[in-house]
Amino acid sequence: MAKLKGNLVIGQSGGPTAVISSSLAGAVQEAMKHDEITGAYGMVHGIMGLINEDFIDLGKQDPAVIEGLRRTPSAAIGSCRYKVAEDEYGKILEILEKYNIRYFFYIGGNDSQDTAKKISALARDKKYDMRAIGIPKTVDNDLPITDHCPGYGSVARWLTIATRDAGLDTEAIGIVDNVKVIETMGRNTGWITAATALAKEREDDAPHLVYLPEKAFDEENFLADVDAVYSKLGYCVITVCEGLVDKDGEYLTASSRSLDTDKFGHRQLGGVAQYLCDVVANGLKIKARWDKPGTIQRVSIVCASSADLEEAYMAGQMAVRHAVEGKTDYMVTLVREPGAEYKCTTGLVELEKVALGTKIVPDEFINEAGNGVTDAFIKYARPLIGGPLPEYARLKKIPVKV
Amino acid sequence: MAKLKGNLVIGQSGGPTAVISSSLAGAVQEAMKHDEITGAYGMVHGIMGLINEDFIDLGKQDPAVIEGLRRTPSAAIGSCRYKVAEDEYGKILEILEKYNIRYFFYIGGNDSQDTAKKISALARDKKYDMRAIGIPKTVDNDLPITDHCPGYGSVARWLTIATRDAGLDTEAIGIVDNVKVIETMGRNTGWITAATALAKEREDDAPHLVYLPEKAFDEENFLADVDAVYSKLGYCVITVCEGLVDKDGEYLTASSRSLDTDKFGHRQLGGVAQYLCDVVANGLKIKARWDKPGTIQRVSIVCASSADLEEAYMAGQMAVRHAVEGKTDYMVTLVREPGAEYKCTTGLVELEKVALGTKIVPDEFINEAGNGVTDAFIKYARPLIGGPLPEYARLKKIPVKV
Repeated sequence: MAKLKGNLVIGQSGGPTAVISSSLAGAVQEAMKHDEITGAYGMVHGIMGLINEDFIDLGKQDPAVIEGLRRTPSAAIGSCRYKVAEDEYGKILEILEKYNIRYFFYIGGNDSQDTAKKISALARDKKYDMRAIGIPKTVDNDLPITDHCPGYGSVARWLTIATRDAGLDTEAIGIVDNVKVIETMGRNTGWITAATALAKEREDDAPHLVYLPEKAFDEENFLADVDAVYSKLGYCVITVCEGLVDKDGEYLTASSRSLDTDKFGHRQLGGVAQYLCDVVANGLKIKARWDKPGTIQRVSIVCASSADLEEAYMAGQMAVRHAVEGKTDYMVTLVREPGAEYKCTTGLVELEKVALGTKIVPDEFINEAGNGVTDAFIKYARPLIGGPLPEYARLKKIPVKV
Repeated sequence: MAKLKGNLVIGQSGGPTAVISSSLAGAVQEAMKHDEITGAYGMVHGIMGLINEDFIDLGKQDPAVIEGLRRTPSAAIGSCRYKVAEDEYGKILEILEKYNIRYFFYIGGNDSQDTAKKISALARDKKYDMRAIGIPKTVDNDLPITDHCPGYGSVARWLTIATRDAGLDTEAIGIVDNVKVIETMGRNTGWITAATALAKEREDDAPHLVYLPEKAFDEENFLADVDAVYSKLGYCVITVCEGLVDKDGEYLTASSRSLDTDKFGHRQLGGVAQYLCDVVANGLKIKARWDKPGTIQRVSIVCASSADLEEAYMAGQMAVRHAVEGKTDYMVTLVREPGAEYKCTTGLVELEKVALGTKIVPDEFINEAGNGVTDAFIKYARPLIGGPLPEYARLKKIPVKV
């Protein structure tokens, strides 16, 4: 493979995560090692920065700042949710040529991988020599082929801890606040919600019920589920995905404001937990409270998974290494190596196989009743949240004798 | 003062916090040092445990478990929001006598201090020799006299970090999700919401607007405030208290379900952030998203303030020490010592001075526009959240030259 000399651009796209800038750090630090890469430019607000020629020179930053990005949440060069219009691709190619950009990297979800694919195809059509590699990023964990996605392990850890805390909280005050409903992100897939099950250390621990959008939500079954837990324990902690749907595939709740529909046609979700509290209050005449941590769950470095931080970095690093070696039109994947101990390496998958694709939680990870996860899921997800959880003390119920 | 020999009971009341069991550990470990205290019993679910003779023997626990409570969130012996009925006090006295309880401790907010006061008064009336000391606990920070309340520093730290993260997040993706509204707890006082201002390290940092229930909320002023920030920065992060009220003192949002009104007459709050997102979308035609972390903010040990954990322990410890020395009918207070460096010791205040009292955020802590806090508040609150925040890296906007 002939050496391709020129500049690199990299962009961040979609909802920022705790580790998306760790991927950026990985890519930039790797780029510095290769003579082929003459400059490293950050697109400000993703592809919009390219179109607007709005760049940050990443090669001229203090190396300590780049290193610091490995533990800085959110997208350091800005993000976007921008669907490139057909008539903008021509301009994009002009800009790529103008800045002698030979390496194109886009950190994002399936929409972003589609953007990378189209730009690369355009360059190839026009005989402009450029290599494009996608770097996976999504808390939703819904990209196909890759074992899991950078960003997921950290939101999973955040919610595991929050759910465990909510369990202790509800156990303590459940005689008053009987039911707690926690609404998680995840849109149309339940990966994030499912991860809350990692909080369960003992049989009666929270979460007691877990509802994913992969299974049609049925209010009657839900009330029966809650009633059964409440009758047994005197309280109940429930986790639900923002994108729960009924048997007709309709969202239980979603904004109908046109403002709240993005350029890819996705509607703003949210409000399911509050709605279900009403269902519980009306149906069972018990008190329910809801938490919707929203975007806070997505960008918290305090609870970031050590595995996730490392893997996000590796994904960025390997994207650059593969491009320098001549690869193009791939997305880096995370690969779980066989064996009892968790070990993660990287692979490559053609962009066209991931662009716009969505991986839902498979049936083998969801229990039969549709209100919890299986051991297979726990086995899948546990290593992704990194080291042990903080240890909590538990009093023994030693009775007092008069 | 004559030595008073007998057993101790201790209870936890109200919303559990990250540090309420640190106070429990402080009390139990101190009790172990005094021969006067022959047994240490935990009331299961606060005063309800006393009425139901439902106790845990705290003196017979593994000492490592008691020590572990110093870093375990939520109320280890269970909590309640129970208003003792007039005709139950007689039974309470019988039980106190039956178990030879001579030391009574209640960890809680103003309702709990009122309960402690009434039980102590009853014992005195009946010539039953018992000492009662209240241990402050409330994330709301609204107890009078005490400089601040155990629990507050940790929720303040949690929200400081969450707001700083939300700031980075909104800065990155604010071109799409223009406005972020974070709803905090706090009921009728703005202490918790005000603490989000600690996230601001530079002038344009989040939170850009902070609204407390101490100032009547005006929608027109609010829209003008948001518009001004959005016009300048292109995004806006707002923190609001769940208990915001309009000029007539009416909650902007509150549940009207009778189920959601507790025995002290407090209505369940929540929904302000979502409501204000509608106001922004309708009034300014820009997109707003909301986070309502709810009870998650209240019981997180991961973000607990080191100062808060230590002070909560100290409050429990000193309550027992003072009781053994002969004091009764007091609540332990946290006292900020004079001097440039923050130093916290404890004091005592008569229960009758704190029972049912509420300390609102004073005018000197709220800015003139009613949409932020003053430097005096920052000076007050900063030491309470403990050590430094995680350090984040920031890229320099170094432009690219063609």
